[in-house]
Amino acid sequence: MYPAAKIILTVLLLIAAATVFAAGGGKHADPIAPVILGVTGILFFAVLGRFGARKLGQPSVLGELLMGVILGTIGYLFSVDFLLVLREGPAIFEMVDLALSGASIEQAAISTLGEENAVIILDILQGPGGAELTQIAHAVDVFSRYGVIFLLFLVGLGTSVREMQEVGTESFRVAILGVVLPFVFGFMMARVLMPELSISVDLFVAATLGATSIGITARVLEELGRVNCHECRVILGAAVIDDVLGLVMLAIVSGIIISGGFEPVGTLQTIALAALFLVTAFTLGPRFLRRSIRLLDHLDIVEAKMFVSFLFVMVLAWFANLVGLATIVGAFAAGVILHDGYFLKWGDVREHKFSIRDLISPLEVILVPIFFVLMGIQVKLETFLDPHVIVMGFGLIVAAVIGKLLSGLGASRGSSRLAIGMGMVPRGEVGLIFASIGKSLGVFSDALFSALILMVIVTTLMTPPLLKISLNRIPDRREDRSTAP
Amino acid sequence: MYPAAKIILTVLLLIAAATVFAAGGGKHADPIAPVILGVTGILFFAVLGRFGARKLGQPSVLGELLMGVILGTIGYLFSVDFLLVLREGPAIFEMVDLALSGASIEQAAISTLGEENAVIILDILQGPGGAELTQIAHAVDVFSRYGVIFLLFLVGLGTSVREMQEVGTESFRVAILGVVLPFVFGFMMARVLMPELSISVDLFVAATLGATSIGITARVLEELGRVNCHECRVILGAAVIDDVLGLVMLAIVSGIIISGGFEPVGTLQTIALAALFLVTAFTLGPRFLRRSIRLLDHLDIVEAKMFVSFLFVMVLAWFANLVGLATIVGAFAAGVILHDGYFLKWGDVREHKFSIRDLISPLEVILVPIFFVLMGIQVKLETFLDPHVIVMGFGLIVAAVIGKLLSGLGASRGSSRLAIGMGMVPRGEVGLIFASIGKSLGVFSDALFSALILMVIVTTLMTPPLLKISLNRIPDRREDRSTAP
Repeated sequence: MYPAAKIILTVLLLIAAATVFAAGGGKHADPIAPVILGVTGILFFAVLGRFGARKLGQPSVLGELLMGVILGTIGYLFSVDFLLVLREGPAIFEMVDLALSGASIEQAAISTLGEENAVIILDILQGPGGAELTQIAHAVDVFSRYGVIFLLFLVGLGTSVREMQEVGTESFRVAILGVVLPFVFGFMMARVLMPELSISVDLFVAATLGATSIGITARVLEELGRVNCHECRVILGAAVIDDVLGLVMLAIVSGIIISGGFEPVGTLQTIALAALFLVTAFTLGPRFLRRSIRLLDHLDIVEAKMFVSFLFVMVLAWFANLVGLATIVGAFAAGVILHDGYFLKWGDVREHKFSIRDLISPLEVILVPIFFVLMGIQVKLETFLDPHVIVMGFGLIVAAVIGKLLSGLGASRGSSRLAIGMGMVPRGEVGLIFASIGKSLGVFSDALFSALILMVIVTTLMTPPLLKISLNRIPDRREDRSTAP
Repeated sequence: MYPAAKIILTVLLLIAAATVFAAGGGKHADPIAPVILGVTGILFFAVLGRFGARKLGQPSVLGELLMGVILGTIGYLFSVDFLLVLREGPAIFEMVDLALSGASIEQAAISTLGEENAVIILDILQGPGGAELTQIAHAVDVFSRYGVIFLLFLVGLGTSVREMQEVGTESFRVAILGVVLPFVFGFMMARVLMPELSISVDLFVAATLGATSIGITARVLEELGRVNCHECRVILGAAVIDDVLGLVMLAIVSGIIISGGFEPVGTLQTIALAALFLVTAFTLGPRFLRRSIRLLDHLDIVEAKMFVSFLFVMVLAWFANLVGLATIVGAFAAGVILHDGYFLKWGDVREHKFSIRDLISPLEVILVPIFFVLMGIQVKLETFLDPHVIVMGFGLIVAAVIGKLLSGLGASRGSSRLAIGMGMVPRGEVGLIFASIGKSLGVFSDALFSALILMVIVTTLMTPPLLKISLNRIPDRREDRSTAP
């Protein structure tokens, strides 16, 4: 285009924009428009965060999380309505629920948001655009929760039962220690630093510390080109086992919370139900899949794979929730059970143009960053103005790091135990999900939630450089030790 | 598995289920669980509807729509809370908005739902689970609206400016008549049968009648294996043009509604703004895309294509809404502008594993059926108990069918004008989208909306068999007439 045309067009555009705003435009004829603005805005910042993280050689989850923390803090400091509403998270929807069921809106706000916040948030929600903000916040919340479900489904899809069986005893020992030690340290730390909390909350904190992120460790190892070193394989094997152990732990502690505290009978019932659910899913799931896919005529393969995957994940997620497990446990189980081999009706699997992973990934690519940014936004840095919270956060980080580092002791004498322990440190997305569930259940206060997210950020941030250093100290001669007979 | 084990497992499962329900289980620990149930349930029925339609050789949109009508009617007859809430559509959210801003919930309900409905709906929403139903309804609504945006984006992606320029004058004449005649007939019919409505509502009804569904016609022609006959190419060319003409019409009539009635100045301003938006999008859009893609380092191609596509569609959709156009106009424009050629940085386009269409389709496959079923649910068959509504519905159908049939007169003398007119009849998804926008804007009453959806169903239902008959009467010798010099 010629420069003159460009200038004219720009001027016209500016005039037009001014006219629209002056004419009281910006009103939203289509009720989806404000939701689009909010969701797209958050995704935009997520992409910025991811971009920055990659540029600095950091995991993308870190960039998205920190971008969220920055947004949330800016929102707090400069009173940005939209961000203030998002920071409150699920409490806002509880408030609307209460108000709908007949309570006065003021009462509802105070009982869900606390007196101080209630005034600020009510002021926003009752002002112009307040209702739109609630709708945007709800949509962002729903999208991010669907994102987590797809994320865990994809993790499950990458995990096969056979693979878990083939993991060596060395990985297994590391995995067990890597869950037990941070759990024990976390529990003790929580007891000492937060004696005011109930035991079930302490258990939930401890469980959050037990998580390991296979995604982040795997990516660091890949970038170093060291996926095949002995230590690397031990770490990856242990992380796979820890995914499962973490979810089992989550099942137990959230069962305890939901059944209303630590009661032996209720807890046993929860565990029994959870076990029954998993056994049922793994025995009846494949039969059910085969039968329903046999019935699916007249659909092309993309439709068939999408519909079956989506319905299967969602049904298992919902049933998991019904029996007192987290929805993500169901989603993970669905991923482990489902594979492209069920769709043989549409021809040889190797000739399918799209795998299930190919088809679900686009959903995950859009939705998961929204979850990470939202978690960052909900970190309330101002809670750290209280010295007690700083001590608590520091204590949790220490327990989290030392617990995982010591898990390296589970490795054989010849391996670099430090490198293995280091590889287990990052909590990444799994720790985040635990924290978000704790917040949804009303177990974690703002301060505790913020401290836990900080723990996730610190452990994720410190791993790549330290893992590089400790792996580089291992001589290359070991590279193929364990492939030798 | 052995039969004995199967029986034992089933018994255990039933006992477990009973225990859970008895223990007051079924409470939702994870706030996303009820949303999952609602959305997945709707998708399940959508798949059933699609399956049934394919089995009967009908377009899938028809199966999904009819499934929705059946669900809605069952919901009405048997007072199924969830379906009753979904039937009210956007009115529910307006009610919550009003209640949030300080009005009493009863006042809010009466002013948005009407006195009769208000009692029923309030009873549901204030009962146990009422708040959850609002959240589910909102999520379903948001998903279906995103679905429409992706649908129009994909339609745009399949339409190139060059293709439109290459359409022959014969198609062009058919397209113009195919928009103008149903518009005129529809407007007259609305004036005569519904003299109580304002002129701007009549214009919106008329515009809805002017839509053509390229998707349905294309699929019927494909199934007949007659994509290359002369008449078929005229129909497809005309349908492409009509997609654009329809959106322009929608822009104008919705502009009239939003600016508060038929005022010459306001309407001209709307049209000018719309034109400016489109010109800007088509001139600056490609530059903007090229520049931002040049900045995108450190992302893999799937991330890059997903992020760029999603952000670009949503930004254009939002801006379209800002200047008084429908969001789908922006989404369509984004589709026409965007193509895989922008992503050359990641290598030769032909070697990309996934095209933009491949990546966005999974979103569309899940979300669009939700939209169709929801539209079906919102059809209130009981409005047809009023003879006036039956006459109105019948009149609109007659105007819609005759208007499109006569568009065949735009074809050359040698062509089968009846077959061409027949191919233009189905309204399919485009007509649906128009009706849903009219409902969102508060222009269409329940009765009018139901009548219009019925028009969409009838025109879509009658096309495949009648088009087959009229095409089969054309001798095959003409198959390649227009490829001859």
